[in-house]
Amino acid sequence: MSFSPLIRQLIDALRVLPGVGQKTAQRTALHLLERDRSGALRLAQALTQAMEGVGYCQRCRTLSEEDVCSLCLDPRRDDSLLCIVEGPMDVYAVEQTGYRGRYFVLKGHLSPLDGLGPEAIGVPELLKRIDEGAFSEVILATNPTVEGEATAHYIAQLLANKGLVTSRIAHGMPLGGELELVDGGTLAHALAGRRPISL
Amino acid sequence: MSFSPLIRQLIDALRVLPGVGQKTAQRTALHLLERDRSGALRLAQALTQAMEGVGYCQRCRTLSEEDVCSLCLDPRRDDSLLCIVEGPMDVYAVEQTGYRGRYFVLKGHLSPLDGLGPEAIGVPELLKRIDEGAFSEVILATNPTVEGEATAHYIAQLLANKGLVTSRIAHGMPLGGELELVDGGTLAHALAGRRPISL
Ligand SMILES: [Zn+2]
Ligand SMILES: [Zn+2]
Repeated sequence: MSFSPLIRQLIDALRVLPGVGQKTAQRTALHLLERDRSGALRLAQALTQAMEGVGYCQRCRTLSEEDVCSLCLDPRRDDSLLCIVEGPMDVYAVEQTGYRGRYFVLKGHLSPLDGLGPEAIGVPELLKRIDEGAFSEVILATNPTVEGEATAHYIAQLLANKGLVTSRIAHGMPLGGELELVDGGTLAHALAGRRPISL
Repeated sequence: MSFSPLIRQLIDALRVLPGVGQKTAQRTALHLLERDRSGALRLAQALTQAMEGVGYCQRCRTLSEEDVCSLCLDPRRDDSLLCIVEGPMDVYAVEQTGYRGRYFVLKGHLSPLDGLGPEAIGVPELLKRIDEGAFSEVILATNPTVEGEATAHYIAQLLANKGLVTSRIAHGMPLGGELELVDGGTLAHALAGRRPISL
């Protein structure tokens, strides 16, 4: 081995990044040292400021450095719609669709085997948010995985007597997908959810 | 868009990393904020310490936080051999082969179109290093690219009258390679460099 202690320390630290193994960490460390020290120092500062400054929105529980995030404060959004997702990245994904209601961000999904029950993922805060709001529909947009389905089902049951429409995002063929390549469960959902063609 | 300013700043800053696009930067930022804030702060500190503390070895010009690196100071290495490479990562690669001589690290290769002549890549320092040393052989281990070959050829000419053996790393088939997949130039080199089989 021939890297000096500070370079070794940097290589080790870079492995905190998802998907970065030893080889990529080495290349990245030397690239930054040889080509972009000012960019690397900017990254160090951005990491520190974000890790120390970003918390969670009190209302929707997404990542935010303000007590209440800009999405929750935006007066132009539809206060009758609430979309429930598993994480902050999902908010970004749903935003891309043009959705303009409100959000609530769970801390992932129910996972009894990992000891993650309703409290751990923020269900009490969700119920409080719903009671404080004036929603007419709650859209359960947890992931279409076994755990995401179970989480959606659990929450739908809790909301059964609140006089709300509770909906679930649709399953079906992804756009551009091919029947022979998609898994059987997805195709079964696509068939069961078929709709008349209006000409 | 729904990320707060500090998160946006972090996403932008992460794009300084080679191979990291917008999507990966977003995922990485949220992963660090949600899963590993202490690791991210460790990375920030390692970046700062390395960018501010690491310079270049006065003797071999590799990256080092000491004036003279541990490789140059190691008394067990062979002072008669000097291996010339294009960058610090190449030192690491050659070390893996079991080579135990000394090194000199150029700043890349000659690139006249980019205005990179002998001074820019450290040739004067290389000649000084050779004059100060007691080398019997200089191994030119620049990359087997057009620029790397030209750089090796240029340096070999400069060293012609110094009473040194000047050698170039061999070209040929990579181990595990297949004849039908390797490029014609490589195969031509492999044929021209053929050696008798000793049984
Ligand atoms: Zn919010
Ligand atoms: Zn050195």
